Amino acid sequence: MADSPGDQSTNTFDIVILGGGSGGYACALRAVQLGLSVALVEKGKLGGTCLHNGCIPTKALLHAAEVADETRHSETYGVKATFEGIDMAQVNSYKAGVIDRLYKGLQGLIKSGGITVVEGEGRLVSTDANGGGVVEVDGQQYTGRNVVLATGSYARSLPGLEIGGRVVTSEEALTMSEVPEKVVIIGGSVIGVEFASVWRSFGAEVTIIEALPSLVPLEDPTLSKNLERAFRKRKIAFKTGTKFSGVEQTDSGVTVSLEDGSTIETDLVLVAVGRGPNGNGNGFEEAGVTVDRGWVPTDERLRTNVPGVFAVGDLVPGLQLAHRGFAHGIFVAEEIAGLSPQPVLDPGIPRVTYCDPELASVGITEPQAKEKYGDENVETVEYNLGGNGKSQILGTAGVIKLVREKDGPIVGVHMIGARYGEQVGEASLIVNWEAYPEDVAQLIHAHPTQNEALGEAALALAGKPLHSHA
Amino acid sequence: MADSPGDQSTNTFDIVILGGGSGGYACALRAVQLGLSVALVEKGKLGGTCLHNGCIPTKALLHAAEVADETRHSETYGVKATFEGIDMAQVNSYKAGVIDRLYKGLQGLIKSGGITVVEGEGRLVSTDANGGGVVEVDGQQYTGRNVVLATGSYARSLPGLEIGGRVVTSEEALTMSEVPEKVVIIGGSVIGVEFASVWRSFGAEVTIIEALPSLVPLEDPTLSKNLERAFRKRKIAFKTGTKFSGVEQTDSGVTVSLEDGSTIETDLVLVAVGRGPNGNGNGFEEAGVTVDRGWVPTDERLRTNVPGVFAVGDLVPGLQLAHRGFAHGIFVAEEIAGLSPQPVLDPGIPRVTYCDPELASVGITEPQAKEKYGDENVETVEYNLGGNGKSQILGTAGVIKLVREKDGPIVGVHMIGARYGEQVGEASLIVNWEAYPEDVAQLIHAHPTQNEALGEAALALAGKPLHSHA
Repeated sequence: MADSPGDQSTNTFDIVILGGGSGGYACALRAVQLGLSVALVEKGKLGGTCLHNGCIPTKALLHAAEVADETRHSETYGVKATFEGIDMAQVNSYKAGVIDRLYKGLQGLIKSGGITVVEGEGRLVSTDANGGGVVEVDGQQYTGRNVVLATGSYARSLPGLEIGGRVVTSEEALTMSEVPEKVVIIGGSVIGVEFASVWRSFGAEVTIIEALPSLVPLEDPTLSKNLERAFRKRKIAFKTGTKFSGVEQTDSGVTVSLEDGSTIETDLVLVAVGRGPNGNGNGFEEAGVTVDRGWVPTDERLRTNVPGVFAVGDLVPGLQLAHRGFAHGIFVAEEIAGLSPQPVLDPGIPRVTYCDPELASVGITEPQAKEKYGDENVETVEYNLGGNGKSQILGTAGVIKLVREKDGPIVGVHMIGARYGEQVGEASLIVNWEAYPEDVAQLIHAHPTQNEALGEAALALAGKPLHSHA
Repeated sequence: MADSPGDQSTNTFDIVILGGGSGGYACALRAVQLGLSVALVEKGKLGGTCLHNGCIPTKALLHAAEVADETRHSETYGVKATFEGIDMAQVNSYKAGVIDRLYKGLQGLIKSGGITVVEGEGRLVSTDANGGGVVEVDGQQYTGRNVVLATGSYARSLPGLEIGGRVVTSEEALTMSEVPEKVVIIGGSVIGVEFASVWRSFGAEVTIIEALPSLVPLEDPTLSKNLERAFRKRKIAFKTGTKFSGVEQTDSGVTVSLEDGSTIETDLVLVAVGRGPNGNGNGFEEAGVTVDRGWVPTDERLRTNVPGVFAVGDLVPGLQLAHRGFAHGIFVAEEIAGLSPQPVLDPGIPRVTYCDPELASVGITEPQAKEKYGDENVETVEYNLGGNGKSQILGTAGVIKLVREKDGPIVGVHMIGARYGEQVGEASLIVNWEAYPEDVAQLIHAHPTQNEALGEAALALAGKPLHSHA
């Protein structure tokens, strides 16, 4: 493969990648490291949703929110200051500065890697029974011995919910010029609770509407319960087990109607009901690739139904996370190079929700473990952050929950507390390396860190609690 | 052993512990879990230096310092606020609140554990050739089938440096009622750089004097270099490779003379030259226990020269860290109960310095690795935090350095950057479980976390960098 560079005259490459987001550019970078020739097609900006309209800008807003709260409460810590409000123009300029810096870095990486970047909207015009296919961009054709579909996802809405005016998705919510006075958020999963957290810290009255019975319903019930408690304390309102039935915009606001018959008057509605896959509109199905309601199904090796055509990232049913996209992209590059990499499996992928308090988890929840092993074969421990010195210093409440197979390894780690997203790395090693509580309890955790709480939880689950209150 | 509870009439216990700090109380808690009877002797407050005069109060000050900096620079993030200064009375009250809460928790744990707590200064009055010894407290004798020496350490000074007035140790520095205008810190290791960081954030002019050629001289040279750069940026002055030659107090200040002939006029001098062991003054040597310049030497199983007499924590030569004390205490309790635990070895213990930026490390440095394996058998990588999205969002600079034996496991992880102390848990698993870079690179790290930088460093060392700039 190292002997088959891209032939520019015939526009033939080892890999043509459709989409320059997390999955696409990671694939491109790894592929050129392995000596493959790559054309990377992107209609917008390299970096995709994550860098420009997703992870990075929301985390910048969340950090501004953290600074707002710390400043507002600085006197608690002996810091005399007067909080005067939020300057959204400056928030947006800070956010843009972060994106610009990372975007320049990414452009530099792509450039120095020898990747052929094609600007424009690509369309898969044909596939080849012997492998790969042809992508067309502005009338120019690019032939790939392999094609990687990486067109990502978009902010979804619900039937009967038209986006526009005072009804927005995360995309518009990222570029607000003012903090709304009152906002209703439809959807209490990751995106919903993150924006709720930002706007509340910025001073808005926030109400979340979630159809399922709890906030962050895909997480372990302990995390949902603790997040609901924390949000109540922060005076973030929420209605769970409640569906919306309609919104009506007026000149001065929006009326949100719920199926329970109640209505809420608000200034803004954020529709945060997840992201839909961009599998339609780029010719995939017409060229013979199976598309299922916008998704591109693959096998474990990320192969579509067409030989030499792969799909990565948010297009592939499963967790929609940038770091899954990176891993998919790297996997496909190595697969094409013949390295036979290990498949990327969703259960081992760490998940972080960056609201305040943060949530982090990896592996399976207690209910999932009980379903898998039987109720009597699951052991859990909840370590309350009240016993953790650093969490007390930060003034955060929360819990670390470990789930193990009885007499077996830890199969799930679930954490909530300020900054606990950063503990997901150790949690991931524990779950993916199938460590026993006794293995982790054996190791010394540094005092006084928040990280220590993970060690204390393991000590407790191993039957030798240290700073654990019953 | 579970059949030999403390006989209160004869005051005989399975274990008598001298000192209720980290090492002593951890030993007591684990011992009663294992069915042993325990008398725990403490002259001051349970929790010892760490809780009352060490780790916890310094980290509370460091958090107040973080809040001060965030508030001062809040406009960068779009948060309008006016910083008006530090209210030391409130800083101290916040700090006291944290200590009180943790102290109450600890007292509750000790109480519910069934430990006999003896208040007063204990003295080892005799040892028994068959094991253990007798401790006397206020005329009352307590016989231990085993005795654990856990009297900890004190803030040391240097010859010619008398503590008093404007010349203080960390003990007095923790309870200042005002922020000094100018301060000189003698010693640029952990305690010195942490106080430098606090006082600078509180607005003081700070100068550090360090006799060795760099700040934090025991850390990997990359960390020293990066910390010096960060401190220069924060306008913390330092003179390395420079010894002090004298201090002279006047009514209005202190003059510090250095061996290079220069002098510094200042308001306060902090002597931060480490901690000395409390091995003298409690009868250890007189009762037959070997004491070496205040230290109590032990073997790997923490046995002193006398059978049934153990020593734990800061008394035992090596790293002086609370979490080492915890581990020592737990080890000795399990050893006495006959569980044959794994010894606690210093090289695997994580180390964190909580200044801004934070330092965290585990395992050996590059120079140590080269000495151990030979120059040509060591590989390293430095991952610059410029490539880490979350670090950019926080606005911190820094680096993660991995050291591996060529074609072998990672033997050292060295990190610097805001909040990077919290990453030491994953680093510790990597080093202690002898992971290869390829093992870590295989795992997915969550985006955008600071934790991700550890994954990126592993990817780079495994030869497949993702967001790495050369």
